[in-house]
Amino acid sequence: MFRGLVTIEEAKIIINQNFRAEPTGVEEVRLLEAFNRVLAEDAIALLDIPPFNRSTVDGYAVRSEDTFGAEENKPVKVRLIGAANVGEAPKTSVKPGTAVEIMTGAPMPEGADAVVMAEDTEQKGEEIYIYNAVAKDENVMKAGSDIKRGEVVLRTGQLLGAREIGGLAAIGLDRVKVYRTPVVAILSTGAEVTEPGKPLPPAKIYDINAYSLSAAVMECGGRPLYMGVYQDDAAEIENAIRQALEMADVVLTSGGVSVGPKDVLPKTLSILGKPGLIICGIAAKPGKPTSVASINGKPVFSLPGHPASALLMFHILICPFIERLAGLKPKENFKVKALASTKMFSARGRRTYVTVKIRKDDSSRLWAEPVPTGQSGAITTLLRADGYVEIPENQQFIEAGEEVQVNLFTRTQTPIW
Amino acid sequence: MFRGLVTIEEAKIIINQNFRAEPTGVEEVRLLEAFNRVLAEDAIALLDIPPFNRSTVDGYAVRSEDTFGAEENKPVKVRLIGAANVGEAPKTSVKPGTAVEIMTGAPMPEGADAVVMAEDTEQKGEEIYIYNAVAKDENVMKAGSDIKRGEVVLRTGQLLGAREIGGLAAIGLDRVKVYRTPVVAILSTGAEVTEPGKPLPPAKIYDINAYSLSAAVMECGGRPLYMGVYQDDAAEIENAIRQALEMADVVLTSGGVSVGPKDVLPKTLSILGKPGLIICGIAAKPGKPTSVASINGKPVFSLPGHPASALLMFHILICPFIERLAGLKPKENFKVKALASTKMFSARGRRTYVTVKIRKDDSSRLWAEPVPTGQSGAITTLLRADGYVEIPENQQFIEAGEEVQVNLFTRTQTPIW
Repeated sequence: MFRGLVTIEEAKIIINQNFRAEPTGVEEVRLLEAFNRVLAEDAIALLDIPPFNRSTVDGYAVRSEDTFGAEENKPVKVRLIGAANVGEAPKTSVKPGTAVEIMTGAPMPEGADAVVMAEDTEQKGEEIYIYNAVAKDENVMKAGSDIKRGEVVLRTGQLLGAREIGGLAAIGLDRVKVYRTPVVAILSTGAEVTEPGKPLPPAKIYDINAYSLSAAVMECGGRPLYMGVYQDDAAEIENAIRQALEMADVVLTSGGVSVGPKDVLPKTLSILGKPGLIICGIAAKPGKPTSVASINGKPVFSLPGHPASALLMFHILICPFIERLAGLKPKENFKVKALASTKMFSARGRRTYVTVKIRKDDSSRLWAEPVPTGQSGAITTLLRADGYVEIPENQQFIEAGEEVQVNLFTRTQTPIW
Repeated sequence: MFRGLVTIEEAKIIINQNFRAEPTGVEEVRLLEAFNRVLAEDAIALLDIPPFNRSTVDGYAVRSEDTFGAEENKPVKVRLIGAANVGEAPKTSVKPGTAVEIMTGAPMPEGADAVVMAEDTEQKGEEIYIYNAVAKDENVMKAGSDIKRGEVVLRTGQLLGAREIGGLAAIGLDRVKVYRTPVVAILSTGAEVTEPGKPLPPAKIYDINAYSLSAAVMECGGRPLYMGVYQDDAAEIENAIRQALEMADVVLTSGGVSVGPKDVLPKTLSILGKPGLIICGIAAKPGKPTSVASINGKPVFSLPGHPASALLMFHILICPFIERLAGLKPKENFKVKALASTKMFSARGRRTYVTVKIRKDDSSRLWAEPVPTGQSGAITTLLRADGYVEIPENQQFIEAGEEVQVNLFTRTQTPIW
């Protein structure tokens, strides 16, 4: 068991070495319920699209050679022998010197190889005068010209949005194989925390983390399993984590990880299974009291009790892990460049994360304003901070006015500034 | 009834004049299920946060005046008379000359007004030597200093992400009032379309739009009601739209709106209720055969049959409307600047939308490459286009290399380029 602090980079390596960050299974769902899921198989077209040659205009399906030489002043005459409608298999074949009326999207009748646009024709009784020659395949969309039978339309790992779901419908699928959604059990520990919705006894505060982390898990493509609040009773916590390990792919706890007389969590994690604790503290500020245990192959992440610190560590270490379990590519893009509104100092030798609020000034410049994550203002910090600025271990400070990259907390939409 | 084409701007005005783009109701949900919902009431703290004065350090709760004059070489001595633990109401009051051992987060005992940090003290039996004076309130987080009872924590209209859900939990809520999710009925019409999952008869193609639009409705905060495919049978379509109007807040159709012998939709929309059709065609390319009807106060939007055109018109006209029904502020931010890869021409007198794919070059510059939305390539266009570039009615073209704004189709995440 490793007892000293590890750096953020070391922590990521240890996590990757100990756990397989890959989808936990595949399930078939209705295509209508596949929105925001991740495709678990290549989607291959089992038919040509379009499945038949279709007209792309309203007009007359003809044999192109019959129209050769037709001009404004020298029309060619063909005989109308039928009509080809949208959605109907054509009943009439086009023979030399004949034409079939056709609508946009209707299948080409046998014998015809081009369509003359209606505006280039004149109908007189059963006779059609053609004033413009057409080449072979003119105004015809050939079968398979959009997608060929056997073609891969979407690949494994594709996140399914509106367009992709449309693409899968196009090839006739109404069910689709997607990766199983990883289940993340979430519990809060601490002698002082009480579940929201219950009366608040003296000396207690309402739990925040099990709620905010449940929502954050959804943002990362996981399914949260809310397990509520456990006070510092060793047997209860052990029992809850045992249950959580049975039901979930990942267990997330917060609180109860500092070294205090009643902090039973680290002890519990050492006895629940092998190898137990693999990370005990991270050289980061905030986030130092973050630990990771491996219990018979499943990860238990224990986050600090401070809500903004817990969410910060979740975003840095755990969210990318859950995303990979969900089959998602880690999203590197929820970042925005801004100017440091004040000098930001780092904690010596520790990766420092400065939680910041983004403010837009009159010149549309974005500013990153620090929101302290100290003991005070746990909720206001949580609500006010839009993201965090990272200061490397070997850097002492960021100068006021310097351009910084803000990693945003929200992963479902970029806020408007 | 207005019969001519209207501009996009006129269409937006007509839509706003005819329909109330505001939430359709309020419902109470569990806070754990409130992720991505919109708050329908101001969330007011009914308690101070923290609810009591708490220590922000491990140390000794004292009367600050007892420590005055304490220095490194001249400690002050007080008598230890008890301990204050996290989550427990303190049993001991601090009287002159005494101290109570206290942990971070524990409530301050009566009589004490400051905490001396453990590292500034030395314990000898029952006596505590204090080597550093503390001022009143030092190392104490006062009740209500984070949030005051009666304070508005979050306002009506707030979208609930992880941080906001944490904030609501903090003030003890486990249920919350949110706006009702608007229900959008979606059906496809057309003699040639068949539902995915069914065998494909000759001359038919699989429906794309009811699927892609269902997913797009979810992206806008609506709940889709998939009603499948209706061929051009007037009675069936009338019946389906009647049903849709009963069950949904908005009805969305696609296909069947061009002027063809079998296009029964416009006729149906004129007889279903008053005032019937209010927009019949828009001066836009693509998107011209877009119509809007008002049936006894409810909107029926009829989109073109071409999947990319339908999705484009949905994004421009309907998505902002559904977002407002959902209580969301329209998201103006799903845009990215890129360079036009080729000259893009507009259709004279019509607002032109050029569907484009975004490509990143070796110098990390983004390029907008047109993906045609013609008759051909309905699916490939849908899958390849990342968004669209708008060319105003009075502009003839966009020069190759010119900077353009690309409006992205996806509204849940910005893709990585």
